[in-house]
Amino acid sequence: MSDKMTGMMPFRIERPDDGIRPCLQEKIDNLTKPKGSLGGLETLAMQAGWIQQTLSPRLSNPCHIVFAGDHGITAEGVSLSPQEVTHQMIVNFWTGGAGINFLARQHHVDLSIVDAGVNFDFDPGDPILHRKIRKGTRNYLYESAMTAGEMNLAVERGADCVSACFEKGCNVIGFGEMGIGNTSSSALWMASLTGMPLERCVGAGCDHTGNIVAHKYRVLSQAMANYRGGGATEEAMRYFGGYEMVMAVGAMLRAAELKMIILVDGFIMTCCVLAAYRLYPEMLHYCVFGHQGDEAGHKLLLDFLGAKPLLNMGLRLGEGSGALCAYPLLESGVRMINEMNSFREIRVTKYF
Amino acid sequence: MSDKMTGMMPFRIERPDDGIRPCLQEKIDNLTKPKGSLGGLETLAMQAGWIQQTLSPRLSNPCHIVFAGDHGITAEGVSLSPQEVTHQMIVNFWTGGAGINFLARQHHVDLSIVDAGVNFDFDPGDPILHRKIRKGTRNYLYESAMTAGEMNLAVERGADCVSACFEKGCNVIGFGEMGIGNTSSSALWMASLTGMPLERCVGAGCDHTGNIVAHKYRVLSQAMANYRGGGATEEAMRYFGGYEMVMAVGAMLRAAELKMIILVDGFIMTCCVLAAYRLYPEMLHYCVFGHQGDEAGHKLLLDFLGAKPLLNMGLRLGEGSGALCAYPLLESGVRMINEMNSFREIRVTKYF
Repeated sequence: MSDKMTGMMPFRIERPDDGIRPCLQEKIDNLTKPKGSLGGLETLAMQAGWIQQTLSPRLSNPCHIVFAGDHGITAEGVSLSPQEVTHQMIVNFWTGGAGINFLARQHHVDLSIVDAGVNFDFDPGDPILHRKIRKGTRNYLYESAMTAGEMNLAVERGADCVSACFEKGCNVIGFGEMGIGNTSSSALWMASLTGMPLERCVGAGCDHTGNIVAHKYRVLSQAMANYRGGGATEEAMRYFGGYEMVMAVGAMLRAAELKMIILVDGFIMTCCVLAAYRLYPEMLHYCVFGHQGDEAGHKLLLDFLGAKPLLNMGLRLGEGSGALCAYPLLESGVRMINEMNSFREIRVTKYF
Repeated sequence: MSDKMTGMMPFRIERPDDGIRPCLQEKIDNLTKPKGSLGGLETLAMQAGWIQQTLSPRLSNPCHIVFAGDHGITAEGVSLSPQEVTHQMIVNFWTGGAGINFLARQHHVDLSIVDAGVNFDFDPGDPILHRKIRKGTRNYLYESAMTAGEMNLAVERGADCVSACFEKGCNVIGFGEMGIGNTSSSALWMASLTGMPLERCVGAGCDHTGNIVAHKYRVLSQAMANYRGGGATEEAMRYFGGYEMVMAVGAMLRAAELKMIILVDGFIMTCCVLAAYRLYPEMLHYCVFGHQGDEAGHKLLLDFLGAKPLLNMGLRLGEGSGALCAYPLLESGVRMINEMNSFREIRVTKYF
């Protein structure tokens, strides 16, 4: 399945060793509860122990990175919201008043905001990570959103952001995005990389007025018709962008390489998982899918990946909000396997 | 719908004043996010603000009470697990090693364990609330599980447990249960109080081996055939028990009377909500439904109540585990309305 071109940095991603799984299952089954009765928490405990290769997994220094970027395609009116919202929201993030901020505070998650390619000149002193590739992608109705060099640089910069978290002791990380127009890129990645018809991949984005989706579909159909890349992963990433999404792909691949648990958000981040998975299929084992969003294609894409998200609460904000909402459930799974008594430790008859 | 008999203590439960709802909606809609994009969190923020009659709801001193009791019907072999598990698990609770304990620690929830009617002589010094009505209910295949006097006492004791939490500053409370055989009582409450056929209400309990459900259904059908109480709420509560469930009903009614937010667990606790709702319909406004459990009748009952649970993770432990797993989502909703910037506070263009 791997279809890597030359130029992109390589990652070394391994499937966790399965040898530990029976021991994990035995430990979980001997906790003082009917077998299997903690359902999804047991699945999370198993995955965390498997990834970390221990019967006592831990979550340490959780981090969350929001990658932000702008999209040349917004010139075609595919989004009801103006492009300026992207940079305005960056300011909202650093003042602590956006959706992702209260979730990060609640769950004691270290939050970083990355300018991957916002169409705005931030001040070098602004409290964000300045990793801008370019002030927005090119308009893919007419040309490739980015060059191969820009794409490779974005992958590297995304990966480096994760390495910095890892060096601070982080072993669990969420990713989110901010970028007006990025549900369009996502739909095109999904259609290119799964082969599903574009119309099943295009949703309303954050526009629930229904005014724009028909126009959006026409524009994206034309872009798809112009495209000559077929199902090649890097080609779709490069052609349809954006920088924030490519950085997220690089970030996810580095996280999997470093055997970190990856918290996956909604439609856009799941499209980034799709691209990462196409490049390195083993990365999927490191993913915990936080929620099923409202965007039309998300359920289809989750099914394609065989993913069962933890939440389904009608979220469609982005920023990684669905990933962080699910974080305490992962923590519950990890606490379960570490903190519950076993039938060997306390006199309880095994029950059902 | 109220069909209260004489003898049970009265509760004064009011629907929260609707006047505040437009103001809450306006505040939520002006937070810096696309309108409605935080889905279920917005619903929770609205409910918390409505219950507390404030635009800035708070969760203070969260508590969780596990009511435990035994059931005479277990003599008929309706449960695969022996009755002794009920008292063994109480010990597990107070040593801190059961499922509900790690969840209470994780979410900083004060946990109380109540002996409502366990068939075991605890030492008066054991660290539980000693509110035993009787050492297990009577066998309702042959006679009423409890007397009217016992039922009324159980309602009062359950209510008093909640008052004690309230006096410590608690305004949000979860309830759970431990009692081998209590899915049988629950199925009978559900069938009596909804009029649905018993076979749709009877599930496997914690027995997923399938060996026992057919026998259980035969026993419960006979008990139902012997029963002369029709759809009367108190009559079903009294006849089919158990003490832990009746205490939970009293506890829920007091919580609603005190305008506390009630976190609802799985099948058994939802049956207690059903009984409480039949007695005082307005109590339903105070309920946040934590999860949809695996027990067969639970989805049906949630639909009957018009309830949309937050989680669906295949939990079937009881103890209130599903209620506490959902607690951080409620906290997220409350943080959202208090901590996010509004479009008036920061220069972000309204977006979609």
